[in-house]
Amino acid sequence: MNVLKKTISRIEAPDTAWMQRAKKKQDTLVKPPGSLGYLEELSIRLAGIYREEKVALNKKMVLTFGADHGVYEEGISIQPQSITADHFASYSTGKCSIGLMAKYLNLDIVAVDIGIKCNHEIPGVLNQKIRQGTSNMAKGPAMSREDAVLSIEKGILLVEEYIKKGYEIFGIGEMGICNTTPSSAMLAVLEGLDVEKVTGLGAGTLPSNLSHKVDVIRRSIEVNRPDPKDPIDVLAKVGGFEIGAMTGVILGCSAHRIPVVLDGFISNVSALLASKLAPLSKDYMIGSHLSDEPGARYALEALGLSYPLNMNMRLGEGSGGAMMFPIIDMALYLYDRMPTFSENEIPDFDQLTPPC
Amino acid sequence: MNVLKKTISRIEAPDTAWMQRAKKKQDTLVKPPGSLGYLEELSIRLAGIYREEKVALNKKMVLTFGADHGVYEEGISIQPQSITADHFASYSTGKCSIGLMAKYLNLDIVAVDIGIKCNHEIPGVLNQKIRQGTSNMAKGPAMSREDAVLSIEKGILLVEEYIKKGYEIFGIGEMGICNTTPSSAMLAVLEGLDVEKVTGLGAGTLPSNLSHKVDVIRRSIEVNRPDPKDPIDVLAKVGGFEIGAMTGVILGCSAHRIPVVLDGFISNVSALLASKLAPLSKDYMIGSHLSDEPGARYALEALGLSYPLNMNMRLGEGSGGAMMFPIIDMALYLYDRMPTFSENEIPDFDQLTPPC
Repeated sequence: MNVLKKTISRIEAPDTAWMQRAKKKQDTLVKPPGSLGYLEELSIRLAGIYREEKVALNKKMVLTFGADHGVYEEGISIQPQSITADHFASYSTGKCSIGLMAKYLNLDIVAVDIGIKCNHEIPGVLNQKIRQGTSNMAKGPAMSREDAVLSIEKGILLVEEYIKKGYEIFGIGEMGICNTTPSSAMLAVLEGLDVEKVTGLGAGTLPSNLSHKVDVIRRSIEVNRPDPKDPIDVLAKVGGFEIGAMTGVILGCSAHRIPVVLDGFISNVSALLASKLAPLSKDYMIGSHLSDEPGARYALEALGLSYPLNMNMRLGEGSGGAMMFPIIDMALYLYDRMPTFSENEIPDFDQLTPPC
Repeated sequence: MNVLKKTISRIEAPDTAWMQRAKKKQDTLVKPPGSLGYLEELSIRLAGIYREEKVALNKKMVLTFGADHGVYEEGISIQPQSITADHFASYSTGKCSIGLMAKYLNLDIVAVDIGIKCNHEIPGVLNQKIRQGTSNMAKGPAMSREDAVLSIEKGILLVEEYIKKGYEIFGIGEMGICNTTPSSAMLAVLEGLDVEKVTGLGAGTLPSNLSHKVDVIRRSIEVNRPDPKDPIDVLAKVGGFEIGAMTGVILGCSAHRIPVVLDGFISNVSALLASKLAPLSKDYMIGSHLSDEPGARYALEALGLSYPLNMNMRLGEGSGGAMMFPIIDMALYLYDRMPTFSENEIPDFDQLTPPC
């Protein structure tokens, strides 16, 4: 608990003086002020985060967490639970979407077993297993309060290691058969939303089985009665280890003034949890895509985060977040390289007066 | 007119057999079918366009057109009209947004003077000038019907040259002080929409001057009475040379089975014009971002095109379209490199049966 408390207490807002400086520079560059929209905003926010004029991010990492879920036994997904372990191995070998994307985009990738249901070490995967999956939340708490805190603190400690090694930005991702189920449950509780509204098919629920999934989530909330005002209680009762670990990465990044790129729905819920524990952590989050999963929009809106990408993706793994990295790189590149009006010998729009 | 007619008559739909083949392959790759959303759709459409399994696009170009507008004299923009010529020179030297983006993304860029109001050759710019800007559409037709056709045909002939040189995909862009004004006018006429709904501030209209811009557009439509059923008439009476030239690029690409990436509002209107002349050309268009200009959404919805990027950009130049190229590259890369379920020794989701 000390790690978590200390981390939260360290989080400060981005530096407004640096942001003002960046905004002022943006307004002199050879374009109508603000016309690059999100690319300008991002460059300004990054200046406030880093307190320096970064011109490029050299060391980038996607941190992905795999875990299993006891609620699987309720028969929500058509996928065998063993896919979590089987597929997770391919994260580091590059034989899956995020592995290929990371290779193509020059992102380092670390895959962490935070609670996969298997006895063996998964090759290429960092073993930080808390337990072999959560308990079935439809019958009782998914995990103990201690394990909930532990999952967050493991995320914090891990990302701190990589920050020490010089990583300047992180993406988060996950893999866990059934993990939209606890995510929808957490979102419904944290924001007081109707379960039906925030529940979708995930990757493995058949349309004919959706109402069963909704029922299971409702039952899990009834059985456990998580306290919406106590984020750790919500994570413990209806959450998952990978969700807690991603929350930890976000808090760890925020405490060290490092931005963190979200992925889809499950990561959005982990971000919501982080924002409940430390509201200032929102300023370090970079929204990426709007997942096809219906809860994503509610989570992102509760966070007040924009999502520049809208590609109907619903894969997880960190794949939607990965697509943000070229956009982030471009924002910094333009900020660094674009000439000013005076350098291009063109009158500055700001100094013009209306013709009529 | 022969070039235009011949080009339109050559346009066919993408090949459905190739698209089915690509879809079938996508469904065997190691992810839930469809979970990569837009990235999958795009790879399937590109297979239908190219009639081959492209694994990478090597020669890419952004074709940008500069032109001036007689309606400028109505006092809509605070920017001096000379900025079109002054700023356009920087497209090829890389000293502007699209120049930098093209450099960073390895896109070739060609800047074409299709009707800029200046006496001199602009260094680094291809001279295809029709006239030194259109006439003031608030007082009469912007251009003759012959010049409207000529602007489209110049776009066609130009892109055909580059297609012969091996370019496999194009982005379009533009520069022209005041050119959201004819764009809004064209959109209002072509889709029968209220002028106020589709008119925004562009890059140089002050909020206090917006109602004047709307009045000027309304007056232009009243004075000219363009026939909504005759797209060339609409271009001639309330259009612009760069809009016609971009339409030509789209038609030329479509006729040669080459995809073309749209940019923001003005390019969206040129795409709408292309779709009115040749509905099948829509299948060769790749929507990019949703411009902050209010008409963009109406134009894209009329076209039925998705816009994966939502970054509140409103710069033009081809800058929003440029941001699509990393996404297109990624779609092809994943399609080419991702292993199948059997290669990864994981059961195929499609062959699973529900557990309950």
